[in-house]
Amino acid sequence: MTVAGQMLETYPKDLGGLDRQKLLECIEACFECAQACTACADACLSEDMVAQLTTCIRTNADCADVCGTTGRVLSRHTGYDADLTRAVLEACATACRACGDECSQHADMHGHCRVCAEACRRCEAACRDLLDSLG
Amino acid sequence: MTVAGQMLETYPKDLGGLDRQKLLECIEACFECAQACTACADACLSEDMVAQLTTCIRTNADCADVCGTTGRVLSRHTGYDADLTRAVLEACATACRACGDECSQHADMHGHCRVCAEACRRCEAACRDLLDSLG
Amino acid sequence: MTVAGQMLETYPKDLGGLDRQKLLECIEACFECAQACTACADACLSEDMVAQLTTCIRTNADCADVCGTTGRVLSRHTGYDADLTRAVLEACATACRACGDECSQHADMHGHCRVCAEACRRCEAACRDLLDSLG
Amino acid sequence: MTVAGQMLETYPKDLGGLDRQKLLECIEACFECAQACTACADACLSEDMVAQLTTCIRTNADCADVCGTTGRVLSRHTGYDADLTRAVLEACATACRACGDECSQHADMHGHCRVCAEACRRCEAACRDLLDSLG
Repeated sequence: MTVAGQMLETYPKDLGGLDRQKLLECIEACFECAQACTACADACLSEDMVAQLTTCIRTNADCADVCGTTGRVLSRHTGYDADLTRAVLEACATACRACGDECSQHADMHGHCRVCAEACRRCEAACRDLLDSLG
Repeated sequence: MTVAGQMLETYPKDLGGLDRQKLLECIEACFECAQACTACADACLSEDMVAQLTTCIRTNADCADVCGTTGRVLSRHTGYDADLTRAVLEACATACRACGDECSQHADMHGHCRVCAEACRRCEAACRDLLDSLG
Repeated sequence: MTVAGQMLETYPKDLGGLDRQKLLECIEACFECAQACTACADACLSEDMVAQLTTCIRTNADCADVCGTTGRVLSRHTGYDADLTRAVLEACATACRACGDECSQHADMHGHCRVCAEACRRCEAACRDLLDSLG
Repeated sequence: MTVAGQMLETYPKDLGGLDRQKLLECIEACFECAQACTACADACLSEDMVAQLTTCIRTNADCADVCGTTGRVLSRHTGYDADLTRAVLEACATACRACGDECSQHADMHGHCRVCAEACRRCEAACRDLLDSLG
């Protein structure tokens, strides 16, 4: 089991009715995507054609920040607040959609954009799945 | 002029039609609230009655993260994306509402909760003002 | 291969002489530890004996922040600065040492502290390994 | 008084012997510098000569992260750990030195680099002042 999975298993109270598997997948997708977007912004910065990648770098930076914050919010369960969880998941799905779309446009040319676009798609899907399960 | 104000003044391109004054107020409110919430979570942790403040600490931690990310997203203007800005501002207003409500309940007893609640109210208002101006 | 590994593979320039395997292990340990510490702070907050876990919660919060920042700094390679990398790794090893020591004291009683202490130990070792390889 | 100052005033326990004025100046310098570096990275990204500013953008991104984390660590006082405070302040001073040096080289040409370099210098000085006062 991953460390994030073990942390969920050892949480001492109940998880406020959240689907544990969907929650875990979303937490892991958020941290993975935060890392990928941070790395992709930097990899774009090292491309000779950086001047054509400035929107990609900016979107990567935003997505890294939003995914990082979402992964942290989802890692907390004390005093669960469904409204806040929903709003943060909506923002994260929006950021991942924007970044996945942007990186996809450069996926043929830059391997890091391809890998990052895939991480964004997975994270967007995980956020939407968790949102749907909140009812 | 504050440093954040000087950074806006020296941005080399236009700000994508954003209201510069509302944007500046929101950036500053976000960083101020991120600091206040981080400090309030820790101050609650040092109260003898910490066991009664656990929801407050958790909400503070979330609000600190969301405000920090919102302040960073709003500090970027390259390749402006209105959908992402809106989603992040909605999440931030929601986090500030939740944290302001929670801290308000302890404002009479704990000075740090009173100061933090005020920072949350200002930040929520600044987010809503900026959201309204986006049209 | 993990996403972080794929991001390293697709970075378009060289990695400034860093040991790729040690770098990857350290990046992954940092993000893993940032998540574990965020979750452990919250799990401690939900324990009935929270009043005895306040130092643990604070150390967790610091370690989560430092590991998150270290994971991001290590995910960037453009314009590599060995001094900054070293200083950040030293801070991260110090934070992980403090948090691992603190969580270890509660490991018998709280499963989340045990899992988190292990993540801190791994992350501290990964930081020290990478530091040693920098020469 | 600033919000950060009010939060220090209302902290319910003592501050572990830290110089309150130096601590406050350092907290405020860290949050100010985190914002300035985030904005400067983005402003550089919008310059026509972005290809010549990639090291600056990367250093800005690191400095923003390190200052943000340092500002958060310094905003916590529960279970104060001098070793961790010192290590984080050293990393922050190093990041601010690197970023201030880099931005200074573009200060004549780019107003945002001038403003950001000044914020980095102030933050580096505040970190060193606080470090010296720790004894």
